Amino acid sequence: MAAETLPAFRRSVMDGFAVHAADTFGASDGAPAYLRIAGEVCMGRVPDEPLRAGTAVVVHTGAMLPAGADAVVILEETTARGDDLEIWRAVAPGDNMVDVGEDVRAGEPIWDAGHRLRAQDLGALHALGVMQLDVRRKPVVAVLSSGDEVVTPSLRPPLGSVRDVNAITLAATIERAGGSVLACGIVGDDAAALLAAAQDALARADMLVLSAGSSVSARDLTARTIAQLGAPGVLVHGVALRPGKPTILALCDGKPVIGVPGNPASALVVAWRFIRPIVHRLLGAPSSEDGLDDADGIEARLTASLPSRAGREDYVPARLERDADGAWGATPLFGMSTLIFSLVRCDGWIQVPLAVAGAAAGARVHVIRP
Amino acid sequence: MAAETLPAFRRSVMDGFAVHAADTFGASDGAPAYLRIAGEVCMGRVPDEPLRAGTAVVVHTGAMLPAGADAVVILEETTARGDDLEIWRAVAPGDNMVDVGEDVRAGEPIWDAGHRLRAQDLGALHALGVMQLDVRRKPVVAVLSSGDEVVTPSLRPPLGSVRDVNAITLAATIERAGGSVLACGIVGDDAAALLAAAQDALARADMLVLSAGSSVSARDLTARTIAQLGAPGVLVHGVALRPGKPTILALCDGKPVIGVPGNPASALVVAWRFIRPIVHRLLGAPSSEDGLDDADGIEARLTASLPSRAGREDYVPARLERDADGAWGATPLFGMSTLIFSLVRCDGWIQVPLAVAGAAAGARVHVIRP
Repeated sequence: MAAETLPAFRRSVMDGFAVHAADTFGASDGAPAYLRIAGEVCMGRVPDEPLRAGTAVVVHTGAMLPAGADAVVILEETTARGDDLEIWRAVAPGDNMVDVGEDVRAGEPIWDAGHRLRAQDLGALHALGVMQLDVRRKPVVAVLSSGDEVVTPSLRPPLGSVRDVNAITLAATIERAGGSVLACGIVGDDAAALLAAAQDALARADMLVLSAGSSVSARDLTARTIAQLGAPGVLVHGVALRPGKPTILALCDGKPVIGVPGNPASALVVAWRFIRPIVHRLLGAPSSEDGLDDADGIEARLTASLPSRAGREDYVPARLERDADGAWGATPLFGMSTLIFSLVRCDGWIQVPLAVAGAAAGARVHVIRP
Repeated sequence: MAAETLPAFRRSVMDGFAVHAADTFGASDGAPAYLRIAGEVCMGRVPDEPLRAGTAVVVHTGAMLPAGADAVVILEETTARGDDLEIWRAVAPGDNMVDVGEDVRAGEPIWDAGHRLRAQDLGALHALGVMQLDVRRKPVVAVLSSGDEVVTPSLRPPLGSVRDVNAITLAATIERAGGSVLACGIVGDDAAALLAAAQDALARADMLVLSAGSSVSARDLTARTIAQLGAPGVLVHGVALRPGKPTILALCDGKPVIGVPGNPASALVVAWRFIRPIVHRLLGAPSSEDGLDDADGIEARLTASLPSRAGREDYVPARLERDADGAWGATPLFGMSTLIFSLVRCDGWIQVPLAVAGAAAGARVHVIRP
């Protein structure tokens, strides 16, 4: 809530003359009103004396009006000859000024809980003299990778192994969503080691993201591990999403736990579709029914028809280009692999909603840009 | 450019059996192919020996194929009886595997200069073992406020004065665009003091933003000051933009200098429209002709008609609401003042392009969300 009333004083919004509006009534090109110029208000100062009837005082934009003044005549509608002022147009009370409290009133509620502060919100806080504010702590999200074939990216992997890619793509998405990442490294496909690492990670964080090994048995191991992390455990194993079907959604002793498929494309889409909204919720942001609770991503027109199965939310890699009108066109990139450099080579992913079976060329689509 | 070839080895993308594709030719439900299971490839390891003709080896998703194997038969299309494997469907060479170099080849160019690294780009860098990268330094943008009526926000302003609002709204916009802010405080409407402060600020930064006092004379002072900061000096004084008309665009000894109107709404729109694209350019990002070089902002449908004058780019405060289909509707908020809390109360600004005279209800509009 605002703690002060703003503006705290009546002020001009134009360069001109502070007047009693009544002194200008009837003024016109043919019959100007005549007032005497009785001084000037300095910027940032309280006017020396109240405005007397029949007089006007020079004011600049932002200057305080003298007591009694109830309008401002703009400079362009006057002629000054020495101290004599001709006014060519009448003003009504309130013209060209802002009154006390027009911006905000003390006690007025301004922001709802969960609001993300924008540039203008910070400006409004400064206008009220609020230099410090309690905000929601960034949720700590632990990221743990698993898989016997995965090595830390700073190493040269032995033949047969690969560097961990998902840890940093997940971390970048989590940080962009407003979370703070606890990097927990890599653990092999060993049930006891994975459980210990996951328990330790979850204990130190508000949420755990577990990037599974790529094989089916590694994924099963991930599911068994999550089931042991706390009650109620796994809520969902498998979602109507492509890529990203083998996703695990769990709640373990009050903390969200997400099992992410090892494939880089799946991991990125799942991070966008599930992890990001959960981080927003942990930050206190209100959520929408579909979890797509903010307007990231853009609207584009499909340049080619797009097949898709109804009953599954599909994300199709796309190239984005602006047409001559500046509108976005999205070209689906078929035959793209789920390898990491394929993700680098596309500009975004066309979202094909659950209930829709494909989309025709020319259709409006939503494109996410992780 | 990629320094390595990825994948570095032929690997399976499914759980199943590595085979010589030729050994499966002609296999069908009625006439399966028969192979002998000759072992299993451990995740992350090099297979012990090459694949011999007539044999198959168990592989998991992500596992390296043995030398000689040129395809993978998926588990679901086989029946194993002890060491004997029945294969119900033929595979072609390359099926269910990725070959060496399918992701990226050593020497292949990946990113253009000026590319902003996304989550997937970081993942690709880690895939290549790149843990550190030279990037463009954040441009330092000095922000200097002026005006005799403006006081630092931590103080209680004397009657007639107001707290500085623009310094933080400008700073927040600059930081969000990727710049680093050098906060230079407030200087009064004094020619010598303003020039000295502006010279000092510009010397320590890559760019200067000068928020002018609100009066016409203070704006003139800003223009005179900028003209003295270096050659060529003021390029543009006044732009076809509302709010934001009295903007000054200057180049002083190779550094951009922007004079921003004191009004909070003008400052925010000018920050979005001019300062942000300049920061992007200083970061090395490619620019589009209109300077609207990224897709921030959203497309929405106007819920009410919007008058506007052709020949001027207008920004109209709006409330955004999603309709039943999840599409955004933008309702222009007429009669909003340019006071800071009016900016807080709106969700975005509808952009009415230069060449357009208003927009009818139902029209598609672009809405920026500073």
